[in-house]
Amino acid sequence: MSSHLIESLGTTVPLAEAFSDRSILRAMLDFEAALARAEAAAGVIPAAAAQAITAAAATDALDAAAIARAARDSGTISIPFVKALTALVDSADASSGRFVHFGATSQDVADTAMVLTIRRARSGLAVDHKRLTHRLRELSDRHARTVMLGRTLLQPASPITFGLKVAGWYAALTRSWARFERSCDEACVLQFGGASGTLAALDGRGLNVSERLALELDLPLPAAPWHTERDRIAAVVADAGICTSTLGKIARDISLLMQDEVGEVSEPGGGSSTMPQKRNPSGCAVALAAAVRLPSLVSSFLTGSIQEHERGVGGWHAEWPTVAAALQATGSALASLAAAIDGLTVNPERMRANIERTNGTVFAERVVMLLAPGLGKETANSLISDALARCRESGKPLRDVLLAMPDVARAIPPQILERIDVAEDYLGSADALRVRLLERSASVRASEC
Amino acid sequence: MSSHLIESLGTTVPLAEAFSDRSILRAMLDFEAALARAEAAAGVIPAAAAQAITAAAATDALDAAAIARAARDSGTISIPFVKALTALVDSADASSGRFVHFGATSQDVADTAMVLTIRRARSGLAVDHKRLTHRLRELSDRHARTVMLGRTLLQPASPITFGLKVAGWYAALTRSWARFERSCDEACVLQFGGASGTLAALDGRGLNVSERLALELDLPLPAAPWHTERDRIAAVVADAGICTSTLGKIARDISLLMQDEVGEVSEPGGGSSTMPQKRNPSGCAVALAAAVRLPSLVSSFLTGSIQEHERGVGGWHAEWPTVAAALQATGSALASLAAAIDGLTVNPERMRANIERTNGTVFAERVVMLLAPGLGKETANSLISDALARCRESGKPLRDVLLAMPDVARAIPPQILERIDVAEDYLGSADALRVRLLERSASVRASEC
Amino acid sequence: MSSHLIESLGTTVPLAEAFSDRSILRAMLDFEAALARAEAAAGVIPAAAAQAITAAAATDALDAAAIARAARDSGTISIPFVKALTALVDSADASSGRFVHFGATSQDVADTAMVLTIRRARSGLAVDHKRLTHRLRELSDRHARTVMLGRTLLQPASPITFGLKVAGWYAALTRSWARFERSCDEACVLQFGGASGTLAALDGRGLNVSERLALELDLPLPAAPWHTERDRIAAVVADAGICTSTLGKIARDISLLMQDEVGEVSEPGGGSSTMPQKRNPSGCAVALAAAVRLPSLVSSFLTGSIQEHERGVGGWHAEWPTVAAALQATGSALASLAAAIDGLTVNPERMRANIERTNGTVFAERVVMLLAPGLGKETANSLISDALARCRESGKPLRDVLLAMPDVARAIPPQILERIDVAEDYLGSADALRVRLLERSASVRASEC
Amino acid sequence: MSSHLIESLGTTVPLAEAFSDRSILRAMLDFEAALARAEAAAGVIPAAAAQAITAAAATDALDAAAIARAARDSGTISIPFVKALTALVDSADASSGRFVHFGATSQDVADTAMVLTIRRARSGLAVDHKRLTHRLRELSDRHARTVMLGRTLLQPASPITFGLKVAGWYAALTRSWARFERSCDEACVLQFGGASGTLAALDGRGLNVSERLALELDLPLPAAPWHTERDRIAAVVADAGICTSTLGKIARDISLLMQDEVGEVSEPGGGSSTMPQKRNPSGCAVALAAAVRLPSLVSSFLTGSIQEHERGVGGWHAEWPTVAAALQATGSALASLAAAIDGLTVNPERMRANIERTNGTVFAERVVMLLAPGLGKETANSLISDALARCRESGKPLRDVLLAMPDVARAIPPQILERIDVAEDYLGSADALRVRLLERSASVRASEC
Repeated sequence: MSSHLIESLGTTVPLAEAFSDRSILRAMLDFEAALARAEAAAGVIPAAAAQAITAAAATDALDAAAIARAARDSGTISIPFVKALTALVDSADASSGRFVHFGATSQDVADTAMVLTIRRARSGLAVDHKRLTHRLRELSDRHARTVMLGRTLLQPASPITFGLKVAGWYAALTRSWARFERSCDEACVLQFGGASGTLAALDGRGLNVSERLALELDLPLPAAPWHTERDRIAAVVADAGICTSTLGKIARDISLLMQDEVGEVSEPGGGSSTMPQKRNPSGCAVALAAAVRLPSLVSSFLTGSIQEHERGVGGWHAEWPTVAAALQATGSALASLAAAIDGLTVNPERMRANIERTNGTVFAERVVMLLAPGLGKETANSLISDALARCRESGKPLRDVLLAMPDVARAIPPQILERIDVAEDYLGSADALRVRLLERSASVRASEC
Repeated sequence: MSSHLIESLGTTVPLAEAFSDRSILRAMLDFEAALARAEAAAGVIPAAAAQAITAAAATDALDAAAIARAARDSGTISIPFVKALTALVDSADASSGRFVHFGATSQDVADTAMVLTIRRARSGLAVDHKRLTHRLRELSDRHARTVMLGRTLLQPASPITFGLKVAGWYAALTRSWARFERSCDEACVLQFGGASGTLAALDGRGLNVSERLALELDLPLPAAPWHTERDRIAAVVADAGICTSTLGKIARDISLLMQDEVGEVSEPGGGSSTMPQKRNPSGCAVALAAAVRLPSLVSSFLTGSIQEHERGVGGWHAEWPTVAAALQATGSALASLAAAIDGLTVNPERMRANIERTNGTVFAERVVMLLAPGLGKETANSLISDALARCRESGKPLRDVLLAMPDVARAIPPQILERIDVAEDYLGSADALRVRLLERSASVRASEC
Repeated sequence: MSSHLIESLGTTVPLAEAFSDRSILRAMLDFEAALARAEAAAGVIPAAAAQAITAAAATDALDAAAIARAARDSGTISIPFVKALTALVDSADASSGRFVHFGATSQDVADTAMVLTIRRARSGLAVDHKRLTHRLRELSDRHARTVMLGRTLLQPASPITFGLKVAGWYAALTRSWARFERSCDEACVLQFGGASGTLAALDGRGLNVSERLALELDLPLPAAPWHTERDRIAAVVADAGICTSTLGKIARDISLLMQDEVGEVSEPGGGSSTMPQKRNPSGCAVALAAAVRLPSLVSSFLTGSIQEHERGVGGWHAEWPTVAAALQATGSALASLAAAIDGLTVNPERMRANIERTNGTVFAERVVMLLAPGLGKETANSLISDALARCRESGKPLRDVLLAMPDVARAIPPQILERIDVAEDYLGSADALRVRLLERSASVRASEC
Repeated sequence: MSSHLIESLGTTVPLAEAFSDRSILRAMLDFEAALARAEAAAGVIPAAAAQAITAAAATDALDAAAIARAARDSGTISIPFVKALTALVDSADASSGRFVHFGATSQDVADTAMVLTIRRARSGLAVDHKRLTHRLRELSDRHARTVMLGRTLLQPASPITFGLKVAGWYAALTRSWARFERSCDEACVLQFGGASGTLAALDGRGLNVSERLALELDLPLPAAPWHTERDRIAAVVADAGICTSTLGKIARDISLLMQDEVGEVSEPGGGSSTMPQKRNPSGCAVALAAAVRLPSLVSSFLTGSIQEHERGVGGWHAEWPTVAAALQATGSALASLAAAIDGLTVNPERMRANIERTNGTVFAERVVMLLAPGLGKETANSLISDALARCRESGKPLRDVLLAMPDVARAIPPQILERIDVAEDYLGSADALRVRLLERSASVRASEC
C-alpha cells in the first residue's frame, strides 16, 4: 500500500481510480452478481437468491480495508470478500447467502476482477494513445522538410528530417499499441472453473453457467479455465512493457534535443524548486521513469507465471501489484508524453544551425561515396581525412577545403561539390520513408508494417 | 565468451551452431554479397564488383576471433568485418573492394545478420515444439479418463483428469508458440538504411536497392529502417520468454509429480554422481533453469531498447548476447521437455491411490454443495467440519462418517452419499473442457483460443 | 496509487503506515524544520524564521493528495510541497516564508525523506527478523536429533536432521540480514547539496549548515551530497532482495514439506473459499510472492541508478515506488514467515516414515562407499544396481536384499550391514555442522560466517 | 554457447580465459586432486590413490566439449566429468579410480570450481579497477578549479567544478568496489558437503577432510556446506551489478559531455563504418551495454537462488551462465572505461564557454538567494522572472539586465552584482566536498564514507 506522494508520477487520476479499492470491489461484486443471475437462469440456484445477491452487490456496503487486512490470513482477498458479501446478503434474505459464490473458487472472482480492471484501464490508455499518435502524425507532416542532424552514438551524422524522426516514433508506437490491444483482446476472457478448474461443483451445468456468465459480463468465454496458465496476462504485461520502452525512446530523444546546448525542441516541462531560469523536461522524466520500471515488472510477471498444478503458491499471489503498477506506469507515460508532444516547441533554425556548426563535416560520408568508385576506398579515405584535418585546423567549411583540393575537385563535378554541404541534397529517401511509415502504420495491423 | 561447460545446459547442438561464429559470419557475408548484387542490378555498382564480392563472401577466409577482438575498439564487429572483407575482395580484384558495404552502415549488416540468425534459430525451435505438442496431445487423449488429485497451493483439491491437466499445458504452449511465431514474422525483416537511416548515400536509388536486397535475402522489406525502433525484436524476446515460462510451468508440475512421495509421473531423467538409487528430473531442471533466466533476458532487452536518436549508445550494444542467450535457453527448454515428455512414465494407480489416501476429504466441497442449498452455508459448514474432525480422529473415510451422521444422511440421497468419494462422479466438465482445449488450440490462432 | 485490496499481501500495517502520505509528509516537514533551525544556528536565516517554520512544520495542515496531483507538472513532489509549506508559514508570519527550503534543492528534501523512511521501515523489519530468527534457533535446537530425508532435485537423498535444515535457514537469514543492516547504515545519511550539489547558495556556510542539519535529523553526514550517486540506496534494495530470496527459500521448503503426500511440517495457514478440508500454506504464499517480486525491483533500481550529471531525468523519478514496494514486500515476507514458523507443526513420525518408505534405498550411497574401496567402483555400482533392482521387484528392504547377497555380505561387516538403513548411523557431521551454523551466525558478522 | 562475435563487447581477453573450458576444467581438477590429498592425509583413502588422482588431474586430457554435451543427460557437468576423470585415473592405476570424488557430490566440485573462478576473475577486475580509480583521482586533482555547468534533468544549473564531478565518480566507484570485494571475501569459501550436505559418506572424518581440503585450495572453510543457501554468491552478483551501474553512470556522463554540441570531454573512442568524421564514444557504449545487462543478471540470480531442500531443481542449474555473464560484463565495462579515462581529453574552454552561453541565467538562483531575505520570495521571484524575460528578449547578459534594474541594484551590493555571473564566485563548498570525497574514499571502508 503506497501513498499518493510515492505514486504521484506513476499513475494518472483515471488509472488510479481504475485500480482503486472501489473499482476492484465493484468488479468483484459484478462477478458475483452476474454469477448468481447466470446460475439462476441455468436453474442452479433460486431466482430469489439471484435477486438478493444482485441487490446486495449493487450497494457500496463492503469495507475494502477490512477485507484487505483479513486477506493476509488466507492469502487471498476473495475469502474475506465472499464472507462479507454472504453476510450482507444474509442480512437481507437469510435463505440467499448460501448461494453467494456458488460453485466458484477464490481465483474465479479475483481473476475475473483483474480482467475487468485491465479492460477498464485499457480504455483509459486508448484515449491518450489516440491523442498522442494523432499529434505525432501532424507533427511529422508539418516537419516533412525540416532538416536536422542525424545523430548516431550521440554524435553528428548525415542529416535527416524531423518529420522522418517523428514518423519513426509514430510507427513504433502504432505497432506497439496494436500488439498491446491484441494481447488485451486475448487476455480479457472469463475466469470460471471452480475449485480445481473442472466446474465439478456445478455438476453437468458448468458450461451452461459459464456461457451465461460470460454474456452477463460481456467477456469472451475461453476454451477452459486458466487458473495456472498465465500466458495471456503475461502477454498484456509484456506488450505494455514494449509500449513503454517505445515511449521511453521518444522521451529520451526529446530530453536530449531539449538540452540547452542542442536546443532543437522543448516540451512545456516544469520548473525547479530553486533555479528560476530552468525549464525541465518533466514530461519526459515521467515517461522515462515508467520505462525504467516496466522491464522489471514484465520480468516479475513472467517469473511468477510458473504456477504449480491447479493453483500456484506465491506466483499467483504476486500478480496483482505487478499488473497494477505496469498498467498505471504505462498510462502515466502515455499521458505525460501526450502532453509533452501537445505542447512541443520545435526550433527549425537551431536544427539547421546545428548542422552548420559541424562545418560540413557531417557530409564526409557523401564525399567518400563520390570519390571511392573512381579512386578506391583507400585514396578516398585518405583524401577525406586530409580534408577533415584541414577543416579542424583552419576552421574553414569542408566545402571550401574540398574545393581547394585538386584531386577532389577533379573527381567530383563542381555543381555537386559546391553544394556538398546542402542538407536538402543529402536526404536520400527520407521523405519516401516517412510517408511509408505513416501510411502503413495507419492502415494496417502491426503484423504488416 | 563463455565455455561449453558453462553453457552446457543453456543451449542445444543445433542452436549453438546457429549462434556460432561461423553462422554469424555467414549471415554477415550473405548480407554483403546480396547487397552487392542488388546494387549492381540497380546500376549503383559495377557487375564485376558484385561478382568479386559474392565470390569472396562465399569463402570461409575471415577470422572471427580476430574480428571479435578488434570490435572492442570501434564498439561493433561490423567495422573490422567490413575492413577484413574489403581486404579479401581487394586481394582478388583491387578495383572491387571499394564497393563492399557500399552505402550501408554497420548496423545494417549487424541487424540483418541478427534477423537471419533469429529466423534460423526459430526453425530449430519449431522442430522441438512440434514434437512436444504432438506428444502432449497424444498424452492428453490417452489419459482422458485417468483421475488424479487436483492440487491448489500444493494441497489436495477436488479431482481432475491427467488428460485435462495435459490439455492445459498443450493449449498454453500452442498459444505461446503462436505468439512467438507471429513476432518472428513481424521482426524478421530487412535492416537497410545507411548512416542515418535515409539511404542518402544511394542517392535516389535507395528504395530500389532495398527492394532487391530484401528479395535476395528472402526477407520482407519493412516500411523503413528500424535502427532505433526495437519493438519488433523486443516482441520476439518477450514471446520467447512467455513460451519458456509456459515450459517452466510444465516442468515444475512434472518435477512435483515425480517426487517419491507423490510418484505419479516420472521423466527419464538422470542419475546422481553419488547416489545410485536416484533418478533426477534433469529434463525439468534444464527447462526450469531456462525459465529462471528468460524473464531477466526479456527485461534486459526492453531496458536496452530505449535507444538514442538514429543509433543508440549502449542499448544496441547490449542486444546480441541477450538475444542469443534467450533463444538458446528457450530452445534448450523445448528440447529437454520434449525428451522428458517423450519418455514420460505415468502411474495411474498412484494417482488414484493419492486420491484415496485423503480418505475422501477432498470431496468435502461436494458435500457442502449438496447440503448448503437446503440447510444454509453455516449449517453445511458446521456439519462438514464435524465430519472432517471425525475422519481425522477415527481414520475412517469421509463417506462412512457422513453415512453415520443423520443430519447429513437426511439431506443427501443415499445413492449419492454412498458414492460421495468416487472421483469419476465429481469431474464436472473435465473432459468437455479437455476436448475444447485440444480442438480450439489445434485449429485456430492464439487470438481465438 | 494502488488500493488496499491490490497491496493486501504486499505490505503489513506498520509498513503501510511508514510509507503512507502522512509519514512521507512528516519526514519532509522534519527536514525543512531541521534545515531552518540549522540555518538559524549558523546565522544564515533569522531565528524567528526558524521558529515560524518549525511551528508550521509541526502541524498536519498540508494536503498530500493535492501535492501529489501537482507533482506531475514539475516532475517532483518537492516543488508543490515547498510551495504549500511556504504559504503556510507566510500565513502565520509573512516575513518567514522566504526562508523555507533556503538554499536547498528538491532532491535534498525528497532524498532525505526517503532515507528517514528507510530507517523507519528498517526498525519495523527488525522486530520480525528478531522474532523469526529466535524461533528458528529454538526450532533447530529442538529438532537436533529429528531425522528426515535429505532431498535433492526433489528426490530422496541421504538423511539429514530437521535441526540442520533449520540451522541452514537460520544462518542464511542471519547473514542476509547483517548485510541489509550494514547497507542501511551506509545509506541512511543526509542528502543536502543545493541546486548542483555544491551548497553554493549558502556561500561558505554550507558545510556548517550540513553538520548541524545532520545532527538535527540524527543522520550521519556523508563526505558529500549524492544526488546522482545511488550506489548506497541500491545496496539497500539489493540486500533486501537477498533477504527476501532467503525467506523465499524457507517458504518454498515449508510449502513442499507441507504437501499432503509429504506431511512433515505444517504452517497454520489459511482456508479455502470452497474446500473445507483445506489448510493452505498461505504464509508461505505471501513470502514466495515477495520473492517473485524482489529480484525485479532490485533490477529496476539498478537500471534507474544510472543518473545523468547532477540530477537524473527519469531514473531518479522511478525510485520511490521501487523502494517502497521492495521494503514493504520484504517486510510482508518476514512477518508472514515469522507467523508461519511461530505456529509450525512438525511431524517427526512422518519424517521417519518417509525415510522408511524408500525401503532403505536412500542408503545406496552408503553401500557404495563401503564396497568401492575394496571392490572398485564398477563392481560396487554393479552390485548396488542389482540390489536396487531386487528391492523394486520384491518390495523387500535394501538391508534384507543386501544381507542375501554373498558378495556384499562378505565385503561389509555384519554389524554395519544389519544397520545399513538406520538413519542415525548415517548422519555424518550433521549435528556438528548445525552447531557451527548457529554459533557462528549468532556471534559474528556476516563477513565471518 | 555463444560465439566470439556475439560476446565481443561483453568480455575481455583475460576474463574470457577465466571462464573458458580450460579454466573451468582446471578448477574442477584442482578440487578433485586437493580432495584426494586431503582424504589421504585424513586416512580416508590410500596415499597412492591421492598420488594417482593428483597426477591425472595435472594433465589436460579431458574433453570439455564432450563433457558439456553429456551434461544434458544428467543435468550437471559434474557427472560426466567425474566419470571421465575416473576413467583417466583407472587407465593409469586401476585401483585408484574408485577413490576419485570420494564422498563428494556433484555440487561440491561444481560450486567450488565456481568459487575458484570468481576469485580468479576478481583478480582480473582488480587490475582495471585500480587503474581506473587512480586515473580518476588524478583527473579530479588536475581539474580542481576547472569550472563547468552543473546539469540537472539535462538542463543547465549552477556551476560546479569538473574536479568535483570526477570525485563523485571516484567515491561511488570506490564504495561499490569495496562492497564487491567484501562480498567476494564472504562468498569465496569451500563447498564440500557430500550428497545431502552432512558429510555422511566420510563417517566422522568429514570435518577433518573439509579443513584439509580448504587449506589445499586456499579457501576459507565456512560454518557448513551451502548447497541451497546462495545468499553469498547472490551478494557477489548484486555488488557486481552496483559497480556496473556506477560505471554506467560515468559512461553516461562522458557520452553526454562528448556530444558535439557540448564538446567538453572526449574519449579516444572509435570510428564509423561509413562516416569518416566520426569519433564515437565506443568505450562508453561498452560500459553502458554492461550496465543494461547487469541489473537483469542480478535479478536472474536472485530468482534462481530460491533452491529447494538440499539441492535445487532449476535454480542451481541456471547459475553458471549468469555468474559468468555478470562478471565478464562488469570486467568489460571496467576495462573499457579505464581506457576511456586514460585517453580522456578535457576541454576547459568549452566548459567555460557553455556556462557563458547561458548568458548568466544559470546564476538566477544566486540572485534570488540575495534578494529573497530582504524582499521576500514573491518579490524576488517576480524580479528575477522579469530579468530573465529581458535577457531572452534582448540577448543581453543577466548581469547587465540586473544592473539596469533599480530594485535589484538597491538590494544587492554592487561589488557582488557586478560579479554575479562569475562562476568561481558561486562554487560554494565544491572543493571542500571534492577533497572530502577523495580523502574519505581512499582511507576508509565503504561503510564509513
